[in-house]
Amino acid sequence: MNKLRIGVIGAGYWGPNLIRNFLLAPNASVDAVADAQESRRKFIADRYPTIRLFADAKEMIADPQIDAVVIATPVSTHHPLAKAALTAGKHVLLEKPMCASSAECDDLIAVAKQRGLTLMVDHTFLYNGAVRKIRDLVQSGEIGDVLYFDSVRVNLGLFQHDVNVLWDLAPHDLSIMDAIMGPNATSVSAVGQSHFNRPQANIAYMTVSFGGSALAHFHVNWLAPVKVRMTLIGGSKQMIVYDDTEPSEKIKIYDKGVTITSNNVEEIHKTLVQYRTGDMRAPRLDGTEALYLVAKEFVESIRDKRQPLTDAASGRRVVAILEAADQSMKLGGQPVKL
Amino acid sequence: MNKLRIGVIGAGYWGPNLIRNFLLAPNASVDAVADAQESRRKFIADRYPTIRLFADAKEMIADPQIDAVVIATPVSTHHPLAKAALTAGKHVLLEKPMCASSAECDDLIAVAKQRGLTLMVDHTFLYNGAVRKIRDLVQSGEIGDVLYFDSVRVNLGLFQHDVNVLWDLAPHDLSIMDAIMGPNATSVSAVGQSHFNRPQANIAYMTVSFGGSALAHFHVNWLAPVKVRMTLIGGSKQMIVYDDTEPSEKIKIYDKGVTITSNNVEEIHKTLVQYRTGDMRAPRLDGTEALYLVAKEFVESIRDKRQPLTDAASGRRVVAILEAADQSMKLGGQPVKL
Amino acid sequence: MNKLRIGVIGAGYWGPNLIRNFLLAPNASVDAVADAQESRRKFIADRYPTIRLFADAKEMIADPQIDAVVIATPVSTHHPLAKAALTAGKHVLLEKPMCASSAECDDLIAVAKQRGLTLMVDHTFLYNGAVRKIRDLVQSGEIGDVLYFDSVRVNLGLFQHDVNVLWDLAPHDLSIMDAIMGPNATSVSAVGQSHFNRPQANIAYMTVSFGGSALAHFHVNWLAPVKVRMTLIGGSKQMIVYDDTEPSEKIKIYDKGVTITSNNVEEIHKTLVQYRTGDMRAPRLDGTEALYLVAKEFVESIRDKRQPLTDAASGRRVVAILEAADQSMKLGGQPVKL
Amino acid sequence: MNKLRIGVIGAGYWGPNLIRNFLLAPNASVDAVADAQESRRKFIADRYPTIRLFADAKEMIADPQIDAVVIATPVSTHHPLAKAALTAGKHVLLEKPMCASSAECDDLIAVAKQRGLTLMVDHTFLYNGAVRKIRDLVQSGEIGDVLYFDSVRVNLGLFQHDVNVLWDLAPHDLSIMDAIMGPNATSVSAVGQSHFNRPQANIAYMTVSFGGSALAHFHVNWLAPVKVRMTLIGGSKQMIVYDDTEPSEKIKIYDKGVTITSNNVEEIHKTLVQYRTGDMRAPRLDGTEALYLVAKEFVESIRDKRQPLTDAASGRRVVAILEAADQSMKLGGQPVKL
Repeated sequence: MNKLRIGVIGAGYWGPNLIRNFLLAPNASVDAVADAQESRRKFIADRYPTIRLFADAKEMIADPQIDAVVIATPVSTHHPLAKAALTAGKHVLLEKPMCASSAECDDLIAVAKQRGLTLMVDHTFLYNGAVRKIRDLVQSGEIGDVLYFDSVRVNLGLFQHDVNVLWDLAPHDLSIMDAIMGPNATSVSAVGQSHFNRPQANIAYMTVSFGGSALAHFHVNWLAPVKVRMTLIGGSKQMIVYDDTEPSEKIKIYDKGVTITSNNVEEIHKTLVQYRTGDMRAPRLDGTEALYLVAKEFVESIRDKRQPLTDAASGRRVVAILEAADQSMKLGGQPVKL
Repeated sequence: MNKLRIGVIGAGYWGPNLIRNFLLAPNASVDAVADAQESRRKFIADRYPTIRLFADAKEMIADPQIDAVVIATPVSTHHPLAKAALTAGKHVLLEKPMCASSAECDDLIAVAKQRGLTLMVDHTFLYNGAVRKIRDLVQSGEIGDVLYFDSVRVNLGLFQHDVNVLWDLAPHDLSIMDAIMGPNATSVSAVGQSHFNRPQANIAYMTVSFGGSALAHFHVNWLAPVKVRMTLIGGSKQMIVYDDTEPSEKIKIYDKGVTITSNNVEEIHKTLVQYRTGDMRAPRLDGTEALYLVAKEFVESIRDKRQPLTDAASGRRVVAILEAADQSMKLGGQPVKL
Repeated sequence: MNKLRIGVIGAGYWGPNLIRNFLLAPNASVDAVADAQESRRKFIADRYPTIRLFADAKEMIADPQIDAVVIATPVSTHHPLAKAALTAGKHVLLEKPMCASSAECDDLIAVAKQRGLTLMVDHTFLYNGAVRKIRDLVQSGEIGDVLYFDSVRVNLGLFQHDVNVLWDLAPHDLSIMDAIMGPNATSVSAVGQSHFNRPQANIAYMTVSFGGSALAHFHVNWLAPVKVRMTLIGGSKQMIVYDDTEPSEKIKIYDKGVTITSNNVEEIHKTLVQYRTGDMRAPRLDGTEALYLVAKEFVESIRDKRQPLTDAASGRRVVAILEAADQSMKLGGQPVKL
Repeated sequence: MNKLRIGVIGAGYWGPNLIRNFLLAPNASVDAVADAQESRRKFIADRYPTIRLFADAKEMIADPQIDAVVIATPVSTHHPLAKAALTAGKHVLLEKPMCASSAECDDLIAVAKQRGLTLMVDHTFLYNGAVRKIRDLVQSGEIGDVLYFDSVRVNLGLFQHDVNVLWDLAPHDLSIMDAIMGPNATSVSAVGQSHFNRPQANIAYMTVSFGGSALAHFHVNWLAPVKVRMTLIGGSKQMIVYDDTEPSEKIKIYDKGVTITSNNVEEIHKTLVQYRTGDMRAPRLDGTEALYLVAKEFVESIRDKRQPLTDAASGRRVVAILEAADQSMKLGGQPVKL
């Protein structure tokens, strides 16, 4: 197979990380980078003298020597850039969140399908060792039924100008939730608050319901004194604590829980709940850089003509939940159906 | 002044702690204890041979040798027992939550007022050194405006039969919130979930709004693998982390935050947000047992004919929020006005 | 079997804990308590009205209604009291450290042997769930050879008047070391320092050698700002961290270590060291109160006419090491042979 | 002033960090790099195409276009390289430890003095924000007299071939100790142990005495399951905990300690010790990269013709202690005078 010739749009904060990892990925080359800012183009030229540079992304998209486009620009530009690339017959990898609305996502999905092109979203977290281990534990049934998913992602963060704290921080946790709890979320409610006369909420709480007994909840906050990156996953058999700030033991699996000793339906209100406390273990995690695996997955899913792990459908589900959360915030926290 | 002669109703889990502390409090004596269970009366008799014991609380309430009644029984019995005691002319200290409904609270408040009796709620947390320090920091203005109050109280807890996890765990945090953010909460929304075919929610999230820009949020959970007792308080000047599981440094005050450098109203969307990172300090806390100070406050507020720190009005506010939360949970999370 | 009738000497800080646990132990009764201080005798009388009280321990020792004596007095009195009890035909449980010198220990051991009596030392730590688990892990061979034992026990502690910090704090860790590394320590070196013109060292470091490649080291300190109770145990297969201040996960077992890939003796200087990093696990620990198990072991070892787990020989080994450490401190840290 | 033209010897692990920081430092340029390995020269050429490269360090030292030489090679080569550079009239910055013996240090110091050249040691830790803050606290008298210095630096580390664990890890802590406790150490004792038939000790404990009542102790270990970087500093007024693994609050200052209430010399044995517990604070620390400040100090001390903060005399003191520790280890832990 020939190397996949990649063009990257956007060489700001995240773009250079993508370039570095696509250069390491097998069967891929980074041939071109587009950025409107001259200083960013110079930054790339200094480090990678052989990469062709474009001030205008459209020009790079039109280049027949490019097979695939990686888009790392502000979310408002995702749809037009990706649509242009797909229309030009290029495979596309989009930064998270995928688009500014689910309608935009749908549009891209339709074009990609029609043209038989790969459309993937860079939900990086799904490729790190901790989250892959959690997925394995859930999918193998070791954890039992997932009863709840509780995530806290807070610190003294940069106040964004264009999006609120949910669109900034929650896509990470929503993509993890999506991989673990499945695609059947039914409704969303959210409350948020902005401070200092800022237009965008800088603290928000969001709940995602799944119809049955499962529940997911998210706390995101740009105005917290300490950094917390903590996810609790309650399973009917075991429970997981995922603390991303821990240097080595990011995942702890607790053989703790509740045992129901009466199954007599008539005695349902007298159910005997017993508590079970067992060992805890922190499995060794694969330390491969997640973004390298993102690059590898993009290349391989194109080659194998298969859906990538973080496909456009999952990207759309995350955007749909954020969209519903915005609506719920406007309605003062009323639940919004998905 | 003669010693306040106290009768305690309920010698189960909490009652003995109350007895022990009222025996230590100045100007008080524990003269009688009522409990329907013989084993609990024997437990008290073995330890305190001079305390008179009653199987029937009504009898003890009727005793003219008793000045004040302390009620540590299930919440459904609070109203009838407290009403009987007040009607018999006794001062009353009620365990939290004060009653099963705000209507019950109102009824007791009216009787107490009419008879000129003290009616106090045992919101124990407000008397511990950490919460008193937080109150001081907020009231002195050191923290600035309180922007948010975020509380997490989770662990593998006993599934209660009569109340859900909010009524069990949240009164602690609501009483702290009430003391810090003031009495002007405007609406409540809550979602919860029960598992294992149990009738009562064992995990719940609750948001309390205050009209303006302040927000309070609560996560309570009987089904968590680890014990978390963490409160974040975001102030416009400083921020507090209160971790009740820390053995010695329960409160950390961060001189961290955001500075707004433009106050130009027209440039509101261009506000310059700057981040400020300063020292952290963990003040020494008074280690006096909180329940001893509860006992002392009850005795002194009766003597001085003044409202106690945790008066019936605050107890009622906590119950009103729990009541609204139950309603919101039934409505799938819709906000309910207070 | 008739109940073992126990007399306790010393009702100060630790005595009441012993009384409480011997009252719970099967086949034992606490019949008498001796304490020279009237206030302590009153303390016992208030709680246990049926226990006979003695101001003079000698009188209690002479009482034919007593089968066994438990001694919880300052270490300087251990030898005379225990010798009197053994001579009077009573079994003896001694608080740690066993005696003020190894010669005193030898004398008691000889008398106990001659009279066929049980002589046991209360090395409580060996009965707690964490240390029992560590012992099991070492004895089962799971850990491999023990390469080192490193213990830190520091905090802002009471400055003792009669003993230095080693005699106060190190017996705990020495008894654990003895159970894990075996009885073949060969030499001891120690340095210590006193401050504030106090006669006794308030900080000390001690090393115990075992001839071969194993090493044990101890840091004890009454003048530390934080409480640390941490033991590292390096094994050739696995390593253990025992943190006694952790509320729930006191023991962590790391499947980490070093693998030697060349065994060629001639290439010894080229040995290839490889690092192995595996899972960590925190086993569930038995939460039974250690002192209850001490009481049970004392009663059962008397009944079964067998050596107790913490026998006089182990008590003597701990004292011999402390004695050598004192000598080494006087010699400025020179190693002293055992 | 003209730019100081620097040549770096050794482009292995640490050399590139030195190059990067000297390139940022004011009034300095990195003109040349010498490394015997071609792959390392290529590594530098790819990143810094304008730097001249030498396979032979001697050649670079002889180059009249070079004003100062930075040496980042194994310790056994420090003396010959530095001597050649000084003899050629170049200022020298040496990696830690300064040399393989104090005699080698003396020789370099003599040559530097004779030629009027700057000779500095890269004790990087003395330039990081945490250690600078500790120095300030000690020098301002806030901490009071330093009573002890206790350092633990352990983890699963690379077994070195040429030096033992003390020479590898302890120079960091010895340089901090030297800055805080002053240059008057009087004797050293150390014990160590090698495992897996390795020639060099992989675990070691070292004590440094200061004649008076101050004591310093070091635990270094390549075979520990967890990473610990903890220093306790006990002062007569306040105490410091320095935990270098903490992401943000590396230094905690405890207003805790002991108060002596009797100064009556005759009552020395009855001294009343009282415990004082006050606030804890974690000061904000300057986050400037320490190695940048090392580079700046080297350049400025040459320009100002003054001794650098980490001068050759301090480098020699660290080496002399390591030398004495090796001797003490050979003597089984006997203290060795400095």
